[in-house]
Amino acid sequence: MKMSRVRNAALKSKIMSAQDAAALIPAGATVGMSGFTGSGYPKEVPLALAARIEAEHAKGNPFRLKIWTGASTGPELDGALAKADGIEFRLPYNSDPIARERINKGEMEYLDMHLSQVAPAAWQGFLGPLDTAVVEVSGIREDGTLIPSSSVGNNKTWLDRAERIVLEVNSWQNAALDGMHDIYYGTALPPNRVPIPLTKPTDLIGETGFRVDPAKIVAIVETDAPDRNLPFAAPDETATAIAGHLIEFLKHEVKRGRVPASLLPLQSGVGNVANAVLAGVAASPFENLTAYTEVLQDGMLDLLDSGKLTVASATAFSLSPEAAADLNSRMDQFRGKIILRPQEISNHPEIIRRLGCIAMNGLIEADIYGNVNSTHVMGSRIQNGIGGSGDFARNAYISCFVTPSTAKGGKISAIVPMASHVDHITQDVQVIVTEQGLADLRGLSPKQRARVIIANCAHPDYRDMLQDYYDRAMMGSYGLQTPHLLTEALSWHQRFIETGSMKA
Amino acid sequence: MKMSRVRNAALKSKIMSAQDAAALIPAGATVGMSGFTGSGYPKEVPLALAARIEAEHAKGNPFRLKIWTGASTGPELDGALAKADGIEFRLPYNSDPIARERINKGEMEYLDMHLSQVAPAAWQGFLGPLDTAVVEVSGIREDGTLIPSSSVGNNKTWLDRAERIVLEVNSWQNAALDGMHDIYYGTALPPNRVPIPLTKPTDLIGETGFRVDPAKIVAIVETDAPDRNLPFAAPDETATAIAGHLIEFLKHEVKRGRVPASLLPLQSGVGNVANAVLAGVAASPFENLTAYTEVLQDGMLDLLDSGKLTVASATAFSLSPEAAADLNSRMDQFRGKIILRPQEISNHPEIIRRLGCIAMNGLIEADIYGNVNSTHVMGSRIQNGIGGSGDFARNAYISCFVTPSTAKGGKISAIVPMASHVDHITQDVQVIVTEQGLADLRGLSPKQRARVIIANCAHPDYRDMLQDYYDRAMMGSYGLQTPHLLTEALSWHQRFIETGSMKA
Repeated sequence: MKMSRVRNAALKSKIMSAQDAAALIPAGATVGMSGFTGSGYPKEVPLALAARIEAEHAKGNPFRLKIWTGASTGPELDGALAKADGIEFRLPYNSDPIARERINKGEMEYLDMHLSQVAPAAWQGFLGPLDTAVVEVSGIREDGTLIPSSSVGNNKTWLDRAERIVLEVNSWQNAALDGMHDIYYGTALPPNRVPIPLTKPTDLIGETGFRVDPAKIVAIVETDAPDRNLPFAAPDETATAIAGHLIEFLKHEVKRGRVPASLLPLQSGVGNVANAVLAGVAASPFENLTAYTEVLQDGMLDLLDSGKLTVASATAFSLSPEAAADLNSRMDQFRGKIILRPQEISNHPEIIRRLGCIAMNGLIEADIYGNVNSTHVMGSRIQNGIGGSGDFARNAYISCFVTPSTAKGGKISAIVPMASHVDHITQDVQVIVTEQGLADLRGLSPKQRARVIIANCAHPDYRDMLQDYYDRAMMGSYGLQTPHLLTEALSWHQRFIETGSMKA
Repeated sequence: MKMSRVRNAALKSKIMSAQDAAALIPAGATVGMSGFTGSGYPKEVPLALAARIEAEHAKGNPFRLKIWTGASTGPELDGALAKADGIEFRLPYNSDPIARERINKGEMEYLDMHLSQVAPAAWQGFLGPLDTAVVEVSGIREDGTLIPSSSVGNNKTWLDRAERIVLEVNSWQNAALDGMHDIYYGTALPPNRVPIPLTKPTDLIGETGFRVDPAKIVAIVETDAPDRNLPFAAPDETATAIAGHLIEFLKHEVKRGRVPASLLPLQSGVGNVANAVLAGVAASPFENLTAYTEVLQDGMLDLLDSGKLTVASATAFSLSPEAAADLNSRMDQFRGKIILRPQEISNHPEIIRRLGCIAMNGLIEADIYGNVNSTHVMGSRIQNGIGGSGDFARNAYISCFVTPSTAKGGKISAIVPMASHVDHITQDVQVIVTEQGLADLRGLSPKQRARVIIANCAHPDYRDMLQDYYDRAMMGSYGLQTPHLLTEALSWHQRFIETGSMKA
């Protein structure tokens, strides 16, 4: 039998079943849960809550919750609660398909936030009161402090701000996580905010655990359930080509003396293309790299293993099942090389600008001027959310966006006349990379940007269509700073909605 | 006869006419000029350059320049050079009508940048080399350091980075400016950037003058010409109503304990409405206020005079002729109460977020979800530029946008179905105020935002049209996170282009 990870004697009395814990959360409550990109989210209490909600609904009783998290979670949380129609309001990020469907049917309100701003907004009182925190930890120490799990997210803030706390103590999480977190307790509300004393990705500025008021803990649930770890696709030809263009660009920047030989701290978004870029970095001549990023994917672990990456600072893991098992088997080796921080710090504009991160994020579409849509398919249907991309893109040393030039088997062009929704304005988009090539947009006016994006990034199937739009916009636009034909600007999206393809 | 303000003996030999100085700048050069919202820009050399360019053009010789500044300048600079067709490329901000016309005709390339990012981008080498700096100062000290003028802008960076320097020493500027500047010399390129040690608007972290390599100074021109000071309109009924709503909101925030009684450092954009808001603050019960902003307008001086405002930190003055004359007559009284800093510091995201500025900016249009267009009329025609609004809006404690609900005598609605260009995404827009009312958007999903914006901010002439669009979008949109009808989303703008009115 496993040793209990609840090592504080007084708190042992709070251990109960997930059902009993879920019963403490009333209908209408605002619940701050742990979880970031499928790691470190509570697994048992949300499932028990979903069962309870379904039972109440079956009796005709309304029961819905407002759910706050770090970012995305797993099927046991967003999936189960959305399936039960138990979520009235959700922030700040979602990637669960069932929740997404409810949101896009208008059945669930969703507030898509900059991830760095969630904790400050909560402290500032802008999101309303927080009734209950449901937070997964990997252990409770003798002194009552909490050992964080495989993500930190907003947990510090939820624990500090909630009236009541439910803990899930998950023994599936590696005991060697203890000591790998850096929980900064120096934040404050203005006028008392001070500089965050972090100048290198390796700096430790906080504590290894969460402080918690034991009087607020109403339940502790012991679990042994794995994080949701999704497989990554092996880099295909498209992803490899994208990575190749970006590595070539970075080599060029080093050669021109604009970027140090060991680059600057890397930030990489989540997904297969981002992972492929990291694989490209692994195969490149760069050495002594660092990462100051939001999430650690497989590619980051490979880079650490190879010795090319000396440290990776993030707020969460997002690993494939194989990488998670591998990490779990030798977590000790990564001590001092991996640092998990609150998302307020991993994504803090102050730090990102100071360190000069090289940001690499995905997108849904970019327009010919380089406005980027990261969130809304055809301008109205949310995919996931802006996440940390806005925190990084606006403050990066170089803000790069990577994407295949088409989607849906060629029926959608990632380069369009006008973005149907804008998350990143032209000022925050310096480099766009597709498998077709790379557009270096630094120092260019909108019309100069358009010529480079169409020539370098668009898929050949759409290049002439884009050039034709641009040429005609140059003749018929109201103004010629950012030429557009308003009757056609969104016609590609409308055509896709009507015909299933953006092709004319 | 006035004493020369060139007090360094060795530099006196560089004094020459503006014509001789202008002759040192070759065709095709990149020139970094001083100037921010019509203050502290060089007046004589640009005029002489414009005359030279016109003469060259008359002879059939090409002669155009790339012009960088702090922000907007005056008719002697942007106006004269644009009139002469002497500007090939311009960054980072323009409000000159002649230059605007050339830009919108496609005759001049214009890169509209976040004002905080211009100096870093120059240091990072992303804008190319800088041939010549043409900088107005209010004096040269015995030791060769330069006393800044009525704006600081990017002057430190231009002086440091340019190969050659031309100085205009303007004795129209008040001698008492000496000591009112705080020029921070602690910036660096990553990986050597450190925290900026500013935690209060009153903090002095730099020097009172610019350091300069005397060997780079190729010309000094003595002038006595006034800044371009444009009159402000007296607050009309609309502006007064907007100010009233915003003051009411701030009182409510104080009452709820979300904002301190002395508020938080105020940032105010440029213009008549912003000035009216400051007049509203002057008539309010708030006391012990501070300002950490980009530009000091008349309203800020009035607030300092009344004692309600204890300090105002900015990068430039932007005063009416009356206020400029008044300030000039008693500059001494404002010592220690007004601090002028480089725009990299006045607009630095790190500082803005730390201080928790309350940001108040104008807009061209907002859509029903609260995306804000600050720059492009009908989506393609540039008005001025994004300026510092992005620096402040994303990092503010509360980001407010203020606007009359209509423009052009009611023919344009400031609230539209879909913004025709986006500068500020919904995440960066927390409060929208028109004379009709105030929309507090904090913590709301897109659909919740739409209901509040339509009800509280839209003009009655357009409210039903907006509600009708929203209702039909709820029925026919591809997704319901941010409902839109793509065939109609930009139809109001197209109607204005075709008929001169957005009204159906």
